[in-house]
Amino acid sequence: MSIQRFHSGPRMSQMVVHNDTVYLAGQVADNAGATADVTEQTAQVLRQIDALLAEAGTDKSKLLSATIFLPNIASFGAMNKAWEAWVDAKNTPARATVEARLAGPEYLVEIQVVAAK
Amino acid sequence: MSIQRFHSGPRMSQMVVHNDTVYLAGQVADNAGATADVTEQTAQVLRQIDALLAEAGTDKSKLLSATIFLPNIASFGAMNKAWEAWVDAKNTPARATVEARLAGPEYLVEIQVVAAK
Amino acid sequence: MSIQRFHSGPRMSQMVVHNDTVYLAGQVADNAGATADVTEQTAQVLRQIDALLAEAGTDKSKLLSATIFLPNIASFGAMNKAWEAWVDAKNTPARATVEARLAGPEYLVEIQVVAAK
Repeated sequence: MSIQRFHSGPRMSQMVVHNDTVYLAGQVADNAGATADVTEQTAQVLRQIDALLAEAGTDKSKLLSATIFLPNIASFGAMNKAWEAWVDAKNTPARATVEARLAGPEYLVEIQVVAAK
Repeated sequence: MSIQRFHSGPRMSQMVVHNDTVYLAGQVADNAGATADVTEQTAQVLRQIDALLAEAGTDKSKLLSATIFLPNIASFGAMNKAWEAWVDAKNTPARATVEARLAGPEYLVEIQVVAAK
Repeated sequence: MSIQRFHSGPRMSQMVVHNDTVYLAGQVADNAGATADVTEQTAQVLRQIDALLAEAGTDKSKLLSATIFLPNIASFGAMNKAWEAWVDAKNTPARATVEARLAGPEYLVEIQVVAAK
């Protein structure tokens, strides 16, 4: 049994790998302050997910599940625009999307994924 | 390491199997437009989960965890009525239930499960 | 493939172990009625998680992921105070925290974790 942690701080790790399962922290946009556009924030979150998965030696074609939190469910379409431009259309994960307020009002989307490696 | 995807579209898959762990997408009732009854919608969702698990060669006795989202937490009891009529009482999963608005106002419950196979 | 269930009732189990992955039910404070303090309820929830993990033969140093639900996201700091006093700072899990109303108004925090054993 092996556990590897990435970008670990005293509160949380951004990624934890257990055997061949990869758990990511909920990702919010690093540049949230600079954009109030859900599509752009989603694209930024997905770039962060790409970078984390790459550190674990895997990629978006091995996504298993995704949970997406939107503070306003009315932005479902705007989030999906960035999601569908990014996701590997032949290898899409199981997914759930619900409305939930996030840790700060500047965040318009949070995405938490589990992947294989 | 093996990954199998079921009912895959360009946005998401309804089920992804990784080795012997089965991740389902959040399920909402296919017949949501036809009923505004939480108990009936929950029963429908659970039938959909049965059908998906069967495709993966497993069943509800191997549920590991369930996350239940209700747009109105006051319907907790009505949801549980269908849940308890369905779940294998000797093999119940770990579960969390919280309030969250869903992708469309017609949906009164969404259930996301992880199972073994 | 092995599945072990702990504190199982006809609705849910408090913990399910699948091979070397441990899924806990969302935990709310057993003493919720006695305290309206988020920090204290969080500390209580984390003690419950310690006790469950111990029954599975594991502990908080092997946490993989945590999902935290707060009925009022404004209590994010008060929750983190108890979280950071508890979590193994060298072995922190991936984490997501969002706002969601819980099954009863007395509950000020719910935490659902996945661990390795």
